[in-house]
Amino acid sequence: MIEPIQWHDGRLLFLDQTRLPHETALIETDDPSVVIGAIRELAIRGAPLIGIAGAYAAVLAAQRHLGRSWEFVRLQWDAIGSARPTAVNLMWAIDRMRKVVQLSGLVSRMDVTALEREATAIHQEDREACERIAAHGSALLPDQAAVLTHCNTGMLATGGIGTALGVIRKAWEAGRCTHVYVGETRPLLQGARLTAWELSSLQIPYTLITDSMAAVLMQRGIVRSVIVGADRIARNGDVANKVGSYGLAVLSQAHRLPFFVAAPVSTIDLSTAEGAQIPIEERSAREVVVCGGREVAPVESRVFNPAFDLVPARLVSAVITDRGIAQPPGVDTIAALTGTRKPA
Amino acid sequence: MIEPIQWHDGRLLFLDQTRLPHETALIETDDPSVVIGAIRELAIRGAPLIGIAGAYAAVLAAQRHLGRSWEFVRLQWDAIGSARPTAVNLMWAIDRMRKVVQLSGLVSRMDVTALEREATAIHQEDREACERIAAHGSALLPDQAAVLTHCNTGMLATGGIGTALGVIRKAWEAGRCTHVYVGETRPLLQGARLTAWELSSLQIPYTLITDSMAAVLMQRGIVRSVIVGADRIARNGDVANKVGSYGLAVLSQAHRLPFFVAAPVSTIDLSTAEGAQIPIEERSAREVVVCGGREVAPVESRVFNPAFDLVPARLVSAVITDRGIAQPPGVDTIAALTGTRKPA
Repeated sequence: MIEPIQWHDGRLLFLDQTRLPHETALIETDDPSVVIGAIRELAIRGAPLIGIAGAYAAVLAAQRHLGRSWEFVRLQWDAIGSARPTAVNLMWAIDRMRKVVQLSGLVSRMDVTALEREATAIHQEDREACERIAAHGSALLPDQAAVLTHCNTGMLATGGIGTALGVIRKAWEAGRCTHVYVGETRPLLQGARLTAWELSSLQIPYTLITDSMAAVLMQRGIVRSVIVGADRIARNGDVANKVGSYGLAVLSQAHRLPFFVAAPVSTIDLSTAEGAQIPIEERSAREVVVCGGREVAPVESRVFNPAFDLVPARLVSAVITDRGIAQPPGVDTIAALTGTRKPA
Repeated sequence: MIEPIQWHDGRLLFLDQTRLPHETALIETDDPSVVIGAIRELAIRGAPLIGIAGAYAAVLAAQRHLGRSWEFVRLQWDAIGSARPTAVNLMWAIDRMRKVVQLSGLVSRMDVTALEREATAIHQEDREACERIAAHGSALLPDQAAVLTHCNTGMLATGGIGTALGVIRKAWEAGRCTHVYVGETRPLLQGARLTAWELSSLQIPYTLITDSMAAVLMQRGIVRSVIVGADRIARNGDVANKVGSYGLAVLSQAHRLPFFVAAPVSTIDLSTAEGAQIPIEERSAREVVVCGGREVAPVESRVFNPAFDLVPARLVSAVITDRGIAQPPGVDTIAALTGTRKPA
């Protein structure tokens, strides 16, 4: 079991995922701004995992200001919540942390203890959510067939076995899934660096492709479904996920293949009516100009580098969550999962 | 004007395109096997350019065996013709070379002169073909709009201004094309390394993307057409081209955007009835595992690495050639271009 984040005695240990698969470097810190930096630089990434890391960072912030005013803590919590804009999990985690303390007077030892308990609960709940997502989803994957996934949605992206990759793992253990095709996921190669590494360590047979080869696998009938994670799901079932997901969804439809999204309910943002309202993070040109640590294009190149894209609900066959499946996703099926008849 | 290949005094000079954009290294040789190696390693690439290089390599082979039997020359010509299997241009060039000599007795000075004349003619004809392709194609690109291209189809891929990129260049000079989006074209990054470099040197405004971002540009209405080259076109209009082309064609159709293919008539293979008969080259796993000179995935990874894919004619809006436009491409419109009523 890979543990990308561990909480130990008031300190956070995390795996620097930018160095994988070459080095498995653990960083230990009690400084919340180190965690914020790690989230921004994708040393800690994956929507569920950044939610968990954000919660622990919130504990570190309070711990640091023990006996002092909440004012500084609140500023730091805001910084944590907005470290990355697209995934809703950071804001969701900070919202949960806010609810277990008074936020008035001075930061007490009891406050820190309550926050620590909440962060640990968030972590543990995500671990369990992964198991339930996998249990719900594995039967959906076409039997005796290969599946395609994108980016990394496994142990490195969550507090447990993963979302989409957890589904694949269970389907493989059940003998349903025969082979996994992994899109390398340029620019930051989370598929090549992280998913291939996880599958390799689990001894699940996989084949790596460049992102542009996914269509060929579909054309030749080699893959029979696609499953990805989510960074935010709107009330109507629209999904924001790693750039490339939208294209895969369109290609899946054109080839009549199911396109699945797996995510914990915490990824559903009831305050967002539809995908168009989700802010899409644009990242640095360097990520595209540089490949494998080397400049591969003229440095003066203009670059378009959205980290995520939007998959409209109509292209999603099912949203698989820890509370069940929205199939097809839409206002009603999403409301049923979140237990909200009317949108919040 | 970038000259990726020059013939000078019985010797071939070529740009090692694997080193671009960092180094512009010219290699000079009179050894045909150096040229074959350069074609295999993509130091010389682009369907029209490898045809030209193949023709010059055929001259070098004959020159080397001057006064000796044709037997060795013929063996080397076979090796040239099969250096890469998908593009038809190598075989086409060797076929043309075969027709200007007797191939019996000993290789004479006159044979070498005739071959040199033919290779130079192939080179010159391709230069002119590029101009005509551009003239035919530029009016097809949607006016006042951005276009997306894939791989490299410019001066580095041909004997002239290029095929798809030549069309873009003329459309830009005519004020029709406002901006060029360039897919980086993993695994070998011909878009990032070569097309961006060419556009930069021509001062045509461009934006680089990873291949997975093309769908987002279409979804947002940022690009209004796609144009690519071709490595082989079958009698029915099916197109083999750089891997990623098929996906772009499907995405174009889903977004109701025209998908154009630009190539000289020499790329049309009348002996191939349909795309399914075109051999698709599979290249080494290293090309995918290595990115920018560095291993980015576990070395034990299985890899699927087709260098090309097949775009069925029904997804192609028009095939733009030096002899006119097949719109839509099909048995009849292709036959009209090649001057063959009945397939050969």
